[in-house]
Amino acid sequence: MTEIARGLEGVKFAQTRLSKVDGQAGQLTIGGYPLEALAPNACFEEVLFLLWNDRLPGSAELNALKHDLAARRALPMAAGAVLREAAARKLPIMDALRMGIDTIGLCSDEPHPAGQVDVGCAVALVAHMPTVAAAYWRLLHGLEPIDARPDLDHAANYLYMLDGREPHPEAARALETYFNTVVDHGMNASTFTARVITSTRSDIVSAIVGAIGALKGPLHGGAPGPALDMVFEIRARAARSGDSVAQEADRWVRETIESGGRIMGFGHRVYKVRDPRADVLGLAAQRMFSVTGESRLYEDARVVEEVALRVLEELKPGRNLKTNVEFYTALVLHGIGLEVAMFTPTFAVGRVGGWTAHVLEQVRDDRLIRPDAEYVGATGRAWVPADRR
Amino acid sequence: MTEIARGLEGVKFAQTRLSKVDGQAGQLTIGGYPLEALAPNACFEEVLFLLWNDRLPGSAELNALKHDLAARRALPMAAGAVLREAAARKLPIMDALRMGIDTIGLCSDEPHPAGQVDVGCAVALVAHMPTVAAAYWRLLHGLEPIDARPDLDHAANYLYMLDGREPHPEAARALETYFNTVVDHGMNASTFTARVITSTRSDIVSAIVGAIGALKGPLHGGAPGPALDMVFEIRARAARSGDSVAQEADRWVRETIESGGRIMGFGHRVYKVRDPRADVLGLAAQRMFSVTGESRLYEDARVVEEVALRVLEELKPGRNLKTNVEFYTALVLHGIGLEVAMFTPTFAVGRVGGWTAHVLEQVRDDRLIRPDAEYVGATGRAWVPADRR
Repeated sequence: MTEIARGLEGVKFAQTRLSKVDGQAGQLTIGGYPLEALAPNACFEEVLFLLWNDRLPGSAELNALKHDLAARRALPMAAGAVLREAAARKLPIMDALRMGIDTIGLCSDEPHPAGQVDVGCAVALVAHMPTVAAAYWRLLHGLEPIDARPDLDHAANYLYMLDGREPHPEAARALETYFNTVVDHGMNASTFTARVITSTRSDIVSAIVGAIGALKGPLHGGAPGPALDMVFEIRARAARSGDSVAQEADRWVRETIESGGRIMGFGHRVYKVRDPRADVLGLAAQRMFSVTGESRLYEDARVVEEVALRVLEELKPGRNLKTNVEFYTALVLHGIGLEVAMFTPTFAVGRVGGWTAHVLEQVRDDRLIRPDAEYVGATGRAWVPADRR
Repeated sequence: MTEIARGLEGVKFAQTRLSKVDGQAGQLTIGGYPLEALAPNACFEEVLFLLWNDRLPGSAELNALKHDLAARRALPMAAGAVLREAAARKLPIMDALRMGIDTIGLCSDEPHPAGQVDVGCAVALVAHMPTVAAAYWRLLHGLEPIDARPDLDHAANYLYMLDGREPHPEAARALETYFNTVVDHGMNASTFTARVITSTRSDIVSAIVGAIGALKGPLHGGAPGPALDMVFEIRARAARSGDSVAQEADRWVRETIESGGRIMGFGHRVYKVRDPRADVLGLAAQRMFSVTGESRLYEDARVVEEVALRVLEELKPGRNLKTNVEFYTALVLHGIGLEVAMFTPTFAVGRVGGWTAHVLEQVRDDRLIRPDAEYVGATGRAWVPADRR
């Protein structure tokens, strides 16, 4: 009667065709494709089309979507003023992203009628996310925003808007692989937020703004920064001591665990045998670093990873703490040239593909999401006026 | 295994001390008080204090909260620009409310640490809601926003900011009773949205912005407008035909039901014997109209209600379609002088009291809310490059 499904863990509320997280097998399926087949091969626009249409686009469809996205990249008018004031107040990037996207407002005049879908609004939202993130990052650093380049694809243009230079193709490819890897991941809190808002027949901008707000929370948006800090700190110690990175990594991991600390970038709530996203991003990092010339960092990270896995197995046997998505996210995004403060906003730039697809799926489902709670407060209190309390 | 709790109906995910909806008994408890004891007696600031602290304030505490709210009413700087552009685009009021509140940004620099609560942010959010709603309503009508009056209480100042006139005390009292009546109502979709966002340890502004987006949806924010339209249409017919309002109401209700239409303002998903909010608002309407001089409209509405209840019982026996909150909401808000377009935004101005209280409760609970979904899509699709699709 009063059984409580705390946090709704394990409670299924709907059906989805978008992604499947199989923790026991260590597999992630996105739009029917194993992550390993999709993420390194597809451009981000292909994955967007896949999630919105449940099939990959033909060449003409792909070009049309690329063109459509490129045509909707300009910063919304009101967003400029909002972002400048946010920068003056030094607000966190995720807040500015939420505010900036919020100003887009409705794409059409009315809340969606039951069961109807406007994919154009989804395109506009996906197109605007990198523009707002990059513009705010520059304003925060005292720089003027850079206009989008319509000839560049989605990922490459994001990097271009950050520093005004056309990115190395391998950096853009690594970013696309990252976007594809994080674009959707079952029923996480931000995706669920977007679906709850949509379930009232509200609009897609409201849904995505809510999702950005949820992703901002540190229990969700993650903290890939510390995993990279660990690698850098171990390298610095090795440089000082003259010992190898492997020796310093061994010491660092033991010290951290023995003092009760947590090794960031290892272990996952669901994936117990492997996190498939770590493998995909590890390969993406290897490919990028071998071309862009920082392969020494990549090799050191691999050494740290191997040592950490070995020491974790020794000190926490049976816990199966495998490399998770955060470890290689940090390496890939750093290699692309992004600051740690841009990691979660860049996550949002990729994840909006999944959010919009879930909104479209929820529109078709058209069922209000409204759980219950157990009331444990007082009842029957008698009113007493303020002067007699 | 794959049982799906569609819409999470009846699934309890947490405990709450804030409100209890007892549909079988037709009772609503808010902060331990029966609605009938609280809503007509308390000022809105007392109810806010009650929800945030689980007890009514003493006189000094009440004055301190009133002062605190009054001091935080000014329109946030960036909101002005956003609202002006929204007005130029004629965006719906709920969108402008969401955008304007979004610009408040963080009240403190950091996401809340686990279990910590900053009530100051809740005060700021509640204080800003009427300012943003009133300012946008005026901009939409080509009028300049009116500065808040710190000497007026929350409800009276809202009405003052709409038209620059100090409201009749009975109008302010009726609005307060309305706010108190709708301030919280169990685990509805907007309240749940605020709790999901908070559960990631995100900030309270993100949570409230998400809640506004959810309330905007017509399945949630409701449609009190049509209930009033019905009364006006029946009156107009009576004026034309010379028949009584009761006779025209009888005809109108029969025609509507026989042509498959729905009588707005009657029937509720949960309340089967009575909607306690309708009773409280009915009394508030009676009191206000008897003083402000439109008591004829009130009497006609009562007649329409009686006829509708009788005909509904005759044509849909056993369905127990009782007067719901929307019927008297429309009458009260119209009597106060609000346009129909302001009904849902005004609902939000009251409900933010409950949203903020739920955020504070969820912060203390500190449990990530993340349900599951059943995957029904394809698996094991093989990658084919675009030129071979």
